[in-house]
Amino acid sequence: MTDTIVTGAERAIETLKPLLGDRLVTSDAVRTHHSHDTSYMEPVLPDAVAFPKTEAEVQAIVKACAENDVPVIPYGIGSSMEGHTIPVRGGITIDTREMSQIVEILPEDGLAVVQSGVTRKRLNEELRATGLMFSVDPGADASLGGMASTRGSGTMAYRYGTMRDNVMALRAVTANADVVKTGSRARKSSTGYDLTHLFVGAEGTLGVITELTVRLHPIPEAISSAVCAFPDVGSAVQAVIMAVQYGIPMARVEFLDEVAIANVNNYSKTTMEVAPTLLFEFHGTPAWAEEQAKLVEQITQEFGGKDFQWSADADERAKLWQARHDLYWATKAMRPGCELFTADICVPISRLAEAILGAQQGIQGSFLQGQIIGHVGDGNYHVAYPIMPGNAEELAEAERLADKLVEHSLELGGTASGEHGIGVGKLKFLRAEHGDAAVEAMKAIKRALDPKGIMNPGKMGQEG
Amino acid sequence: MTDTIVTGAERAIETLKPLLGDRLVTSDAVRTHHSHDTSYMEPVLPDAVAFPKTEAEVQAIVKACAENDVPVIPYGIGSSMEGHTIPVRGGITIDTREMSQIVEILPEDGLAVVQSGVTRKRLNEELRATGLMFSVDPGADASLGGMASTRGSGTMAYRYGTMRDNVMALRAVTANADVVKTGSRARKSSTGYDLTHLFVGAEGTLGVITELTVRLHPIPEAISSAVCAFPDVGSAVQAVIMAVQYGIPMARVEFLDEVAIANVNNYSKTTMEVAPTLLFEFHGTPAWAEEQAKLVEQITQEFGGKDFQWSADADERAKLWQARHDLYWATKAMRPGCELFTADICVPISRLAEAILGAQQGIQGSFLQGQIIGHVGDGNYHVAYPIMPGNAEELAEAERLADKLVEHSLELGGTASGEHGIGVGKLKFLRAEHGDAAVEAMKAIKRALDPKGIMNPGKMGQEG
Repeated sequence: MTDTIVTGAERAIETLKPLLGDRLVTSDAVRTHHSHDTSYMEPVLPDAVAFPKTEAEVQAIVKACAENDVPVIPYGIGSSMEGHTIPVRGGITIDTREMSQIVEILPEDGLAVVQSGVTRKRLNEELRATGLMFSVDPGADASLGGMASTRGSGTMAYRYGTMRDNVMALRAVTANADVVKTGSRARKSSTGYDLTHLFVGAEGTLGVITELTVRLHPIPEAISSAVCAFPDVGSAVQAVIMAVQYGIPMARVEFLDEVAIANVNNYSKTTMEVAPTLLFEFHGTPAWAEEQAKLVEQITQEFGGKDFQWSADADERAKLWQARHDLYWATKAMRPGCELFTADICVPISRLAEAILGAQQGIQGSFLQGQIIGHVGDGNYHVAYPIMPGNAEELAEAERLADKLVEHSLELGGTASGEHGIGVGKLKFLRAEHGDAAVEAMKAIKRALDPKGIMNPGKMGQEG
Repeated sequence: MTDTIVTGAERAIETLKPLLGDRLVTSDAVRTHHSHDTSYMEPVLPDAVAFPKTEAEVQAIVKACAENDVPVIPYGIGSSMEGHTIPVRGGITIDTREMSQIVEILPEDGLAVVQSGVTRKRLNEELRATGLMFSVDPGADASLGGMASTRGSGTMAYRYGTMRDNVMALRAVTANADVVKTGSRARKSSTGYDLTHLFVGAEGTLGVITELTVRLHPIPEAISSAVCAFPDVGSAVQAVIMAVQYGIPMARVEFLDEVAIANVNNYSKTTMEVAPTLLFEFHGTPAWAEEQAKLVEQITQEFGGKDFQWSADADERAKLWQARHDLYWATKAMRPGCELFTADICVPISRLAEAILGAQQGIQGSFLQGQIIGHVGDGNYHVAYPIMPGNAEELAEAERLADKLVEHSLELGGTASGEHGIGVGKLKFLRAEHGDAAVEAMKAIKRALDPKGIMNPGKMGQEG
């Protein structure tokens, strides 16, 4: 079996070499770089890595792979967290880094059209002169194709939506090497099956996204931020629920537990009270941003929030969010040499306090030190466990705790992943979350669009 | 062929009679009622109409139909406008009116779970005590299942989204009589193919939606409205574009052309200036709703808007929106005995002035009197032509004008339908809008989920 695939891959490489030249790479270094993502899943080498520049080149690669039954693995910057880009059955990895053209910026329509290798920071740099921003901000400076494929989000999803809400149209090369064009530049449409949303979140198993039309949002006139500590997790979450019920369009509302706050204080030299804490950001006109902050302050007081520290000062705000952003490094600094194992859960917001308390109990009952942070307006939270590389016992414990979190989330009516996706790591939960009929429908769709199963095989749509 | 289907239908009816009793109807009156929607498409009688109360009954109906190769046609209240519910190949129509249970209201999560026959007004009545509202408001008091199936919207979509944005989860009976469960109560998820969005807008061709979980929004503390007349269409649209670029979250922004304003004045005894006009609604805290209005007023002045009439008075606002709502009757009153033929178009907002001017030229070059109204924040507009029932020449002219509008929309990068859908009437545009590869992908998905083609056959996914 393996021999056949290798032979097929060799034939596909032979076919593609004249087209791609030195943008088709079989060196050990490059293949090793593309054998893993940021997860702890077993790495697997691709047979080759292609760096196409155009959609036509992507079509040629897929065609050569289809003709030779060779897997195709789309790859953005490799920042996925559940093994999405691991070529578990070998094949040719399509790295989209050279597909980095900003095709068109349409300020009047609030849209940008980009090749799928464009990263979110790059897009925002290009937008600087327009007064518009692209709002989806996962931790990494990921490619937009990768973010779309994992249905990614970040800290501003409560106000501005996830990739689900911000991808308006796309182009993708499917397994038969055709280009499927989805959506349009109109803000809404009632025509045809919603193929845009089918490709968003499909993790490259239905095709290779080559171009995206994404929604842009006006950069607000005023931005202010606030920090508020709470006596316990439940009070913090209740305050968020009420702010949501009031319809206050918080641009950011991030939860950090005591451990996270202590780590931040230590690393970023901040002096926040070591307690469950909410960090807020408000966007609007100066008056409206201030009013939102005042409304939220009143709500926090109702739930025992202490010393609501509001600031419209750009430097103070930058310092606060830099500290939040540096939490990754702050946590790593607490245990030199460690890596972070990060779990990702999303529950109905009404069950969030319960979910986080369950996570705390899990940490308390373990020999690992975990910390909890969350994009709590969405009911989404992460638990990060610092573990030592190569320590199988710690890895197994982190995996055990993460599995427990998912099981608890599903019991509470939540999902197995809020923003990291299924990849390889969460395949085992797909059926528990969606049920047999839905998973069989997914598999039927996968077979319909990719009968030979060459698009990112061994993952969603085929397994699970 | 017809004989075989009739025999199959008779067998299916025989099978279902003991289960459904008098909720399976074959009378001419009921079949005739379900032979058409509000469009001018040729009516076709179903073989029978079933009125299930439960999802299990829907499963039994689909099973009996599948076993006998009988078409299944989901039916809400029959308010669709492109022939969606016409049983073009006969079969059993599933009328969901008895599936009218509010399953659960979840104020903390801002969600309601309803059976698919619940109508939008009924849901809002049930929500009255909660301070929450369901925002999607097509003209008719449609069923939520029907609204989801046509990806419907209405006047508040710019601020609160369409059915695409407001259906968070659903249950549907597919052609094999399985129940597919999509989505969850979590606000976001990165797991699995997005089946929710696949069923939303599928017009009953992939399954019968039995239950929906929809998003609710807080009823704003303050609501105000405004009216502003403009020297021409282009100025009105440019004002809207700028308000959109400023990020002002207008709850409603409706355009009416001179003809529509004259009709409204005449019917509702209002005294608006007969000119291209924008009607606004603003939601928020009292201060923020007023600030939005002031910002919009400034913008309208930049574009020659005259006499921006703002009001926070509930009675005045009610009168204004009642007049807008009565436009249908106002237009019919101008030509006693007429019916309205309504075209539905949505273009990128940057091309909206161009699109509306094209529509005006079409009206000027025709013997029909048309009027233009639009949900212009979305780039969506309608042209209504009053035509006399049974007048083939007028119908042909209205169809010719409506086709021209779609062709122009597609040239401008828009869509063939903003909110009415494909049905039978717009099947011919599916390929022009989406391209061959996308339409073939849609057909492959349809075949995968409904290999015998029993779900609302002769429509999207099978034809076009």
